[in-house]
Amino acid sequence: MSDQAQVNGERLLKRLDDFAAIGATPAGGVNRQALSVEDREARRLLAELALARGFQVFQDPIANLFIRRGGRGDGPPFLIGSHLDSQPTGGRFDGALGTLAAFEVLESLEDAGIETEMPLEVVAWTNEEGSRFSPGCMGSMAFSLKAIPAEWNDLRGSTGGIFSDELHATLEALPEARMRPMGFPITGYLELHIEQGPSLERENIPVGIVYGIQGTRWLEITIIGQASHAGTTALSFRRDPMTAAATALKTLFDTVMPQDELARFTVGRFAVEPGSVNAIPASVTFTVDLRHPDAGSLDMLEALIVKTCANAADSAGCDARSRRFFEMSPASFPDALLACLDRAAKEQTLATKRMLSGAFHDALFVSHVAPAAMIFVPCRDGLSHNEAEYVEPAHSIAGARMLMASTLQAVSSLGPE
Amino acid sequence: MSDQAQVNGERLLKRLDDFAAIGATPAGGVNRQALSVEDREARRLLAELALARGFQVFQDPIANLFIRRGGRGDGPPFLIGSHLDSQPTGGRFDGALGTLAAFEVLESLEDAGIETEMPLEVVAWTNEEGSRFSPGCMGSMAFSLKAIPAEWNDLRGSTGGIFSDELHATLEALPEARMRPMGFPITGYLELHIEQGPSLERENIPVGIVYGIQGTRWLEITIIGQASHAGTTALSFRRDPMTAAATALKTLFDTVMPQDELARFTVGRFAVEPGSVNAIPASVTFTVDLRHPDAGSLDMLEALIVKTCANAADSAGCDARSRRFFEMSPASFPDALLACLDRAAKEQTLATKRMLSGAFHDALFVSHVAPAAMIFVPCRDGLSHNEAEYVEPAHSIAGARMLMASTLQAVSSLGPE
Repeated sequence: MSDQAQVNGERLLKRLDDFAAIGATPAGGVNRQALSVEDREARRLLAELALARGFQVFQDPIANLFIRRGGRGDGPPFLIGSHLDSQPTGGRFDGALGTLAAFEVLESLEDAGIETEMPLEVVAWTNEEGSRFSPGCMGSMAFSLKAIPAEWNDLRGSTGGIFSDELHATLEALPEARMRPMGFPITGYLELHIEQGPSLERENIPVGIVYGIQGTRWLEITIIGQASHAGTTALSFRRDPMTAAATALKTLFDTVMPQDELARFTVGRFAVEPGSVNAIPASVTFTVDLRHPDAGSLDMLEALIVKTCANAADSAGCDARSRRFFEMSPASFPDALLACLDRAAKEQTLATKRMLSGAFHDALFVSHVAPAAMIFVPCRDGLSHNEAEYVEPAHSIAGARMLMASTLQAVSSLGPE
Repeated sequence: MSDQAQVNGERLLKRLDDFAAIGATPAGGVNRQALSVEDREARRLLAELALARGFQVFQDPIANLFIRRGGRGDGPPFLIGSHLDSQPTGGRFDGALGTLAAFEVLESLEDAGIETEMPLEVVAWTNEEGSRFSPGCMGSMAFSLKAIPAEWNDLRGSTGGIFSDELHATLEALPEARMRPMGFPITGYLELHIEQGPSLERENIPVGIVYGIQGTRWLEITIIGQASHAGTTALSFRRDPMTAAATALKTLFDTVMPQDELARFTVGRFAVEPGSVNAIPASVTFTVDLRHPDAGSLDMLEALIVKTCANAADSAGCDARSRRFFEMSPASFPDALLACLDRAAKEQTLATKRMLSGAFHDALFVSHVAPAAMIFVPCRDGLSHNEAEYVEPAHSIAGARMLMASTLQAVSSLGPE
């Protein structure tokens, strides 16, 4: 069946250009944050393109946008897509490639007159990036929860605006889209995305088959000592939390990642109180972003981090406090769906590699309610969340081919046939 | 001569209370920052007390306040004093004790009808603290330079106000004070101050004879790596400036102070860019406050710090940049003046200890233009720049006795007799 359909590479590249113009930045990137005027403009363009092709357009209460191409049957649809929102200084491909390649799949099937048994839908999830309103992946999270968490309503955007107001305005801006309930049944989900890391490019492999997403924990560690005069306080009188932090971090940087190549340990924030050049700090606070594909390893590493900080604090006459303020369990995508991706790659003669996603994606949340998997394509220098983000045209097109072939494999494998 | 004069301890304690009421904070401290309305009020009170005793009152172009009691001769005066400005959450004694004890010396001599050969003047230096307008010690610095550095004029205060405007308003607020040129000749300078460290209290010694002030260098170290995604970037692809900083600081905390008991090494500020929980930092910047009584050791330690940071940066694939943004050379007070202090302590049967000042003081700047020395008294728990700062009444009075005896020793030793 799939050898009859061909993605239209030129059309896909033109669509990428057209959408990159919405929120374009002078440096060649995109600023199209969630629920912004630019985000609404991108949604409108996608809806207009869809209606022009005779597809149906829906949105749900959190403004997830769905483009439906009906099937022979009327069962739950198979979803393909990604997101249209960007970071404030984001790139042209993060999210947009997966959404527009999915739309290209629908158009290509339409062009070739290929019917599928089950309905196929493109989805553009709301606020994947989380840069304007935190957390990210709100659309897919609410979809999997079948509800919008009440605490999101009053969130203030980093660029102004209240979440519930901006959501309402976004929904209103697309009256052509019919409303749907939150979290309707689906057969499965596939998402094409840029890797946001360097490994496919370095190994010169066009397609990554993502078998899971590593788990994440965010910790905040505070070490409390005693503020004192930098000039008058001799070493034996110091209770310096900076000394404790340096000791703990040196130990952790030397052990966590070097001893476990699947672990990721990052300290991205570090604050000092009172922050005077000539004062021994009263306290230091830093964050830890810890990731691992194995939940047991996350437990073990978190315990190691907490203990190492406590020991270092103790040795410096300080106290350490730790709290976990965010957690996402690791996800494994199902073998049956991954097998469809393997067959698709073979059929399209695309070299692949099985890989783990280091970043979270909407697919992580969708995987809680349906079979889900992801396809990665290389991006230059692994660069993402950056205006210089770039994907080779050939890689964008190969990704769309892989997405179409995988989708057709999946709908025939998961369907009633 | 000096056995005829007695300081009036009760009067001194009352003056300390009266001045502590100006800018008093609810927690029992003082907020009387330089050139503020409260600072002007304290200057006015001191000037009124002085005029009531028949002393003359002067100010110079940077609003250093001088209270003059004439001598038999008309040569350059001998100065005693400190400062009246405080930190925003400062204590009742830092600066005020030295200024009011100096005024008590003048009053006691007046009460006892003791004439000195050379004129004696109390000084309250402008902006010692540097908390509202930086740098600190502006008054004594300008006095020793015989000029106000032009770049100070446009400084903005941390609580509002432009330096030149606030200086002008402060001068205008005390029209009774006659104007004097900047940096007139003086015979010498003595300053009583609280230790701001714990050693006198721990050793139960009422008086410290300060033989010098350690040198200070402030360095800013920036380590530049590459921002990257915390989840997708494997260890071998990381150029993490936080790793480099932890390594460098661990090494420096383990060597600088442990290997040289006179060295002081403090990291009081630490900033991360971009400061996202889930981003490997692009750069980290921290400050180093380095102190040592020996200039050669400062050179050696600064070189060690710069090299250690450069090596750690290099090992992490990062670059390090260092700049020195403040420097104060060590000061040694002259033996002849210190001998006067020794004699005074013996005469007053006060136990003393020779010590180095870890903090800078106005005496450091005055020592560039005249013989200067300092007297320390204990403060509770070594606490200072804190509303809980406290000096035992007996220690305040002992400090004033020591100041008077030392002053009389100095004026007879340095004078023409």
